Amino acid sequence: MINVEKFFSQLTNRLRASEVRELLKWGIKEKVISFGGGFPDPKLYPIREIVEITRDLILKYGHQVLQYGTTEGLDELREELLDFMARYGIEIPSLDNIMITSGSQQAIDIIGRIFIDPGDAIVVENPTYLAALNAFRLEAPKIYGVPIDSEGIRTDLLEELLIKLKKEGKRVKFLYTVPTAQNPTGITMSMRRRKELMELAEEYDFLIVEDNPYGYIMFEDVKFKHLKAMDNEGRVIHLSTFSKILVPGLRVGWVIADKRIIRKMVIAKQSLDICTSTLSQYLCYELLKRGVVDKQIKILPKYYKQKRDVMLKALEQYMPKGVSWTKPVGGLFIFLKCPKCIDTKVMLKKALEKGVAYVPGYAFYVNGSGRNTMRLNFSYPSEEEIKKGVSILAQVIKEELKMKIVAK
Amino acid sequence: MINVEKFFSQLTNRLRASEVRELLKWGIKEKVISFGGGFPDPKLYPIREIVEITRDLILKYGHQVLQYGTTEGLDELREELLDFMARYGIEIPSLDNIMITSGSQQAIDIIGRIFIDPGDAIVVENPTYLAALNAFRLEAPKIYGVPIDSEGIRTDLLEELLIKLKKEGKRVKFLYTVPTAQNPTGITMSMRRRKELMELAEEYDFLIVEDNPYGYIMFEDVKFKHLKAMDNEGRVIHLSTFSKILVPGLRVGWVIADKRIIRKMVIAKQSLDICTSTLSQYLCYELLKRGVVDKQIKILPKYYKQKRDVMLKALEQYMPKGVSWTKPVGGLFIFLKCPKCIDTKVMLKKALEKGVAYVPGYAFYVNGSGRNTMRLNFSYPSEEEIKKGVSILAQVIKEELKMKIVAK
Repeated sequence: MINVEKFFSQLTNRLRASEVRELLKWGIKEKVISFGGGFPDPKLYPIREIVEITRDLILKYGHQVLQYGTTEGLDELREELLDFMARYGIEIPSLDNIMITSGSQQAIDIIGRIFIDPGDAIVVENPTYLAALNAFRLEAPKIYGVPIDSEGIRTDLLEELLIKLKKEGKRVKFLYTVPTAQNPTGITMSMRRRKELMELAEEYDFLIVEDNPYGYIMFEDVKFKHLKAMDNEGRVIHLSTFSKILVPGLRVGWVIADKRIIRKMVIAKQSLDICTSTLSQYLCYELLKRGVVDKQIKILPKYYKQKRDVMLKALEQYMPKGVSWTKPVGGLFIFLKCPKCIDTKVMLKKALEKGVAYVPGYAFYVNGSGRNTMRLNFSYPSEEEIKKGVSILAQVIKEELKMKIVAK
Repeated sequence: MINVEKFFSQLTNRLRASEVRELLKWGIKEKVISFGGGFPDPKLYPIREIVEITRDLILKYGHQVLQYGTTEGLDELREELLDFMARYGIEIPSLDNIMITSGSQQAIDIIGRIFIDPGDAIVVENPTYLAALNAFRLEAPKIYGVPIDSEGIRTDLLEELLIKLKKEGKRVKFLYTVPTAQNPTGITMSMRRRKELMELAEEYDFLIVEDNPYGYIMFEDVKFKHLKAMDNEGRVIHLSTFSKILVPGLRVGWVIADKRIIRKMVIAKQSLDICTSTLSQYLCYELLKRGVVDKQIKILPKYYKQKRDVMLKALEQYMPKGVSWTKPVGGLFIFLKCPKCIDTKVMLKKALEKGVAYVPGYAFYVNGSGRNTMRLNFSYPSEEEIKKGVSILAQVIKEELKMKIVAK
């Protein structure tokens, strides 16, 4: 056996196994109640429609549907998305401003690759989506995290940071944000903060990457505009996906941006995977055109709101004093904070043994803080599982707290 | 409008638009006879079986089939591939030695990312698969091209290069090769050269990336072993794909390698696209299990051999003196060499106007040489189109030659 380690590049040292993915594997095998992944509820998948459409598509257009496609993505799908996004206040000038990606994750990876040189400054919310952090880290940037509160990113602290960086002669390449129903906290950025963020982006001249997987799943009548809808300069790169509103297994996302950026992203994607699954793209196109996606978007918020409420109620009922959590107005997650003495990464093993999985919160933080936090998903487990899982989790936390007190 | 160019990283300058992809777009729009892409013939797609299987799969297992999957890929598919590859002489010790990728292209990209630091030496055949060149270039290595002849890579010249690099204190990280029915030349490496290559890899301690999209489509009874089948040390990374033997539109490939390499590749893929389309993976699994892939592999060589023969005959019939070409024993391509005075990149515009597309050969060369060469695909066009296309192309070449003589 040869020593393969010596062949690996320095980048390989920057690779981090995602806790979520490892958990997911473990959880599936051991059949624990999982608050871990970001899975939609498969009960809501439009199975019947997908079967019917797939049959139609392959029989009628099998030759195209199973062939290579262009790297920028199926024209018909991108055209449908023009109309679809217009309903969310985002005007797309032409097909040159939109491309299809293999899930939003690929868009995040491409953005990291075409914008980041090693040592470049980028800014994220702290905490933020961990797989975005991991993708950006591959390019070795300096990542600055800005805290969030109930109104989203703390623009006052962001401004302080920008002033400091400017003094040091550093320019921020981009700020990555999940402004609507954020992952992991479920928090939605207020309109005031959105305006302030856009102003800062203009003043300090950086790009904004707006990741929007959850904006279609809002539980309350929150008034907001997408950052891309407020963008007159081509400063915002908007990412979205069918993963949460339709099904994740097709791996289809899209990017809306300045056409010069799209052009570069398309050239990069040629070397990454040539094109996104043609069958998946045709399926998404037909599901959009036939109104199945719209139907899903009507059903999902009601359905997930109920699950959120079940989880909030269970948390209220079972959690010991000193534990707090967010009340998300949308999305799939609640973010929970334990007393400072608890390390949720260490506690995870016990929780899994007792039959419940979650994602330790430190993974979402730039600097490894948040060690007493965790992310809970309420979209995938059933209502019964949510109640049972929360009661088990509360018990695990109580025992952990008791141990800590005894240890003192 | 902001100046987005200033945000792009240095990598963005290394992005190259693939001639093939651009051509493909143009060719599709203008309906020229295309010898350009690497498309299989869609007439051979097992449409009926795919429709039937998709229906079964989604109705019976829709929840899994449309959900996220693990990054390493569907266990059932990887297990089927264990058996499948064993029939080609490749023993895979365990599921830890195999992963699924979004086409082979993704495997190439991941290998570039986890092995190449800027300035690292890597070696390729000259000419070689252009999208591999483009993917590797993103990581800014120093790429050395070694000429090939009718027996494949010139191992004598490779050894000279390795001696020279060793003297300079440079170590080669890996050698990328398409040893069987090579792209773009259709040449298959002889067993003698395969042995010499493996010995050199051991002596000079580098990895071998063996890309094998075409090894299933052999026209003559050529005796060969895959490099991976000759590998006792874990030195060979073997890439393969369903794109040419089944359909390209599902975007499913696989990698066989030392488990430490697979582990790193899986972690990288987590950040790239989380997982390959679950529906695509289930489809490939069922098509393998039900023997549809085996059936395809029986049909394809006969069918494409006939097309190759039609093209060879047409070349013989129409091409002017001074033009030569390879006689591929497998795969989808013939590589053609014009007299030195012809620049196939310049000539392409004329050829397209007259109604025929090809890929200029310089794109497959590391150093931009081969300006008088071109790659011709014979799998996609019909026999009639092949005859007509070759006759048009011959006419274009003749006119170009006439012009050059007049210019003198």
